Amino acid sequence: MALKASIPKGTRDFLPTEVAKRNYVTGVIRTQFERYGYLPIQTPAMEKSSTLKGKYGQEGDRLMFNILNSGVKVKKADINAFENNAFSQFISSISEKSLRYDLTVPFARFVVQHYNEINLPFRRYQIQTVWRGDRPQRGRFQEFTQCDADVVGAVSPLLEAECMQLFDDIFDDLSLKGSTIRINHRGILAGIANYLDEPDRIVDFTVALDKLDKIGAEGVYNELRGKGFDEAALKRLNPLLEISGNVLTQLDELEQILALQPEAMEGIAQLRKTLGFLNPFKVSKLAFDLTLARGLHYYTGIIFEVAPPKSVSLGSIGAGGRYDDLTAVFGLKDVHGLGISFGLDRLCIVLEDLNLFPASLSQSVDIVVLNFGDEFMQDLIPYFTKWRDMGIRINCYPTAHKLKKQMQFANCTNAPFVMFYGNDEQQKGIISIKNMLDGKNNFIKLKDFSKKSIIKILKK
Amino acid sequence: MALKASIPKGTRDFLPTEVAKRNYVTGVIRTQFERYGYLPIQTPAMEKSSTLKGKYGQEGDRLMFNILNSGVKVKKADINAFENNAFSQFISSISEKSLRYDLTVPFARFVVQHYNEINLPFRRYQIQTVWRGDRPQRGRFQEFTQCDADVVGAVSPLLEAECMQLFDDIFDDLSLKGSTIRINHRGILAGIANYLDEPDRIVDFTVALDKLDKIGAEGVYNELRGKGFDEAALKRLNPLLEISGNVLTQLDELEQILALQPEAMEGIAQLRKTLGFLNPFKVSKLAFDLTLARGLHYYTGIIFEVAPPKSVSLGSIGAGGRYDDLTAVFGLKDVHGLGISFGLDRLCIVLEDLNLFPASLSQSVDIVVLNFGDEFMQDLIPYFTKWRDMGIRINCYPTAHKLKKQMQFANCTNAPFVMFYGNDEQQKGIISIKNMLDGKNNFIKLKDFSKKSIIKILKK
Repeated sequence: MALKASIPKGTRDFLPTEVAKRNYVTGVIRTQFERYGYLPIQTPAMEKSSTLKGKYGQEGDRLMFNILNSGVKVKKADINAFENNAFSQFISSISEKSLRYDLTVPFARFVVQHYNEINLPFRRYQIQTVWRGDRPQRGRFQEFTQCDADVVGAVSPLLEAECMQLFDDIFDDLSLKGSTIRINHRGILAGIANYLDEPDRIVDFTVALDKLDKIGAEGVYNELRGKGFDEAALKRLNPLLEISGNVLTQLDELEQILALQPEAMEGIAQLRKTLGFLNPFKVSKLAFDLTLARGLHYYTGIIFEVAPPKSVSLGSIGAGGRYDDLTAVFGLKDVHGLGISFGLDRLCIVLEDLNLFPASLSQSVDIVVLNFGDEFMQDLIPYFTKWRDMGIRINCYPTAHKLKKQMQFANCTNAPFVMFYGNDEQQKGIISIKNMLDGKNNFIKLKDFSKKSIIKILKK
Repeated sequence: MALKASIPKGTRDFLPTEVAKRNYVTGVIRTQFERYGYLPIQTPAMEKSSTLKGKYGQEGDRLMFNILNSGVKVKKADINAFENNAFSQFISSISEKSLRYDLTVPFARFVVQHYNEINLPFRRYQIQTVWRGDRPQRGRFQEFTQCDADVVGAVSPLLEAECMQLFDDIFDDLSLKGSTIRINHRGILAGIANYLDEPDRIVDFTVALDKLDKIGAEGVYNELRGKGFDEAALKRLNPLLEISGNVLTQLDELEQILALQPEAMEGIAQLRKTLGFLNPFKVSKLAFDLTLARGLHYYTGIIFEVAPPKSVSLGSIGAGGRYDDLTAVFGLKDVHGLGISFGLDRLCIVLEDLNLFPASLSQSVDIVVLNFGDEFMQDLIPYFTKWRDMGIRINCYPTAHKLKKQMQFANCTNAPFVMFYGNDEQQKGIISIKNMLDGKNNFIKLKDFSKKSIIKILKK
């Protein structure tokens, strides 16, 4: 019986128009990253498991794809461990490599490994696939592409402002209006935890706070009560949840409430400095968001998150923040970093939903040359090379099938021009070019066809 | 103890200059593929193991990277199989996915799965990573990139000629002169096997023949003797090994010797027809090579192989051929195909060895802006956005470090210009731009800096 042609769940094939769309988005991102001085690097899809394990929490270790040792090495399987339900030990005995889970840990490993080859402060970007065994849903795949820009070796509010500007510049190039760049600062969250007399429970506190949008203030209070926060703390929290106005006004209000919390005051001052370096956004909105607590286990300063326009129901399409200790696990301390990340797959969904992909992306061939038989193609072949050298994309129909079939093919390619060269044309020494938009036929002398003026029309 | 920062054997990190070189090569290949009407597709890195297993011979199954089932699924390990040394059964019990081993089998799977979405004859190209657990050596890695162009749904000598032309056009764009495009035809090899009275031993025969270069005619005879070919057969083989001259002359000679072998005569006729569609090559040589027997288990017509210029000691940098049954295993019969493939990693080695990468690839930043303090950067920031919008790549030094350190950084970036804006410049309302090639300083009024004429100089 024949094999069923199918692919693993959560993975995708990309047809030509989808690849064109993805290339369009990565092209915009790449260009902007480079305009901000970021340089491309690539790391292997497979990393040593020891490099990745334990860096993304228990959930990460569980969702990571591990690669089976090849050949005879599989004989070293630790069957005892298996029988004692020590599955992670069993897995370690037959697997030493795992698939890239994000681009940040491999980058930290890269910085340490190539420390003498990079120019600090080092700005790198990386657009590569990552894999996670997550349950697939809209905007979530087991294989997806991240586009990261990070700079290591400097602490600078200027850089942070540039990161926000980068988000906006990329959205501008993609004609994506109305995204919101939300910011917060770890120092502020730490200051609040201290202000609530629960300095060690910043995570419990932020996990609850993160749900404010969904469950409202009362819901947040209930959750905090359940976690043992006392009423006095909740009372102190109340005014914090009610700050309003633009970013600077909110920071003013926070400053009044948290005046005695040095960590919070330092965070607020840093954010003010960063905002001072910002040019007005072209297409995005800026918002302060106290509930934003992304990646709190490694971010140490500013935290970013980007929400798509409200009309698109999808989680964040970008994120980032400052971190100060990412390379320490590889033995290199005090390397400060700042990074942002775009999710290519989600960005594509947003652009698709909002119909923002340029129509030209569906045009991947300039001319389809119909085939009336070898004796005619022989005449044209010397020209094909010339035309292609001039940048024209030619799909030459490979066999002398019936005209109807060839025209059907040409229509499906979406090519703007179709070239005819049969008996008639051969005798007159011309070629006939049909403009597929207006349906008109143009007749051009074969020898004139490689003139620049004509080429220009065909390339549009 | 800190983790050692290292990567699995046979894999590589790519630093920015290496990525620039790889992007340069894939850019050329992509552009040419598109000029010949090929459209990009992408397939997942992970395929179902059932899709890949058994398609590349025993060796392929052994070298394939398998992915461990995630989470609780690993509990289904078939320990009995393990203890009975039935390792491939054991592996199947804990692994259902494998990493892409080449781009051809996934493409065959793709064609069947998306048969109603593609426009036949379908020309696709695919530039993606593949993984093989091979022993690493020069030009051989466990993770490497293939660049494939295939057309399915047509049998046409015109297409075969185009494939050869494509090789030559790509090499021309890469300034790579002197590669040899070697061709052969399965029909000729089958005809010879029959001529030697060993019609079923085409593989044994071609394996020996393939070594002609290394072990000479006498060596080939000895190997064939060892495999049971009789002296009469070897005597008949002798004149075949002595054909000489250009491709057409060699085909003439073959035609005389193999006149009674219909398969060979058909193969020769097909090659002649293909060659009739060929324009003269720009930079490559064409050779007929009777010993070329690549991929004989699936090629059914013409076979290509591309050798780099003789001064580079490296195996083939490209290959391809006609196949007629690749999708049958997925239940779709009679889909004829023709494909060629470039090995990106080997091509890069060849260009590196011959010093053919353009010098401009090392220039990834146009201007480094030195940082004399926040009060100066504040003046410049409104301009940064304008300049970047005009396509200038700006690396703005993030902190006001000592000038010497900043200049060292600027030198390492290889940027052609360095911008100074400190006390002096601020008072005069100018910026100072140092041309790093001639060492000269240019002074430009800040407000004039975004004029197109100046931008043009900076972008060169």
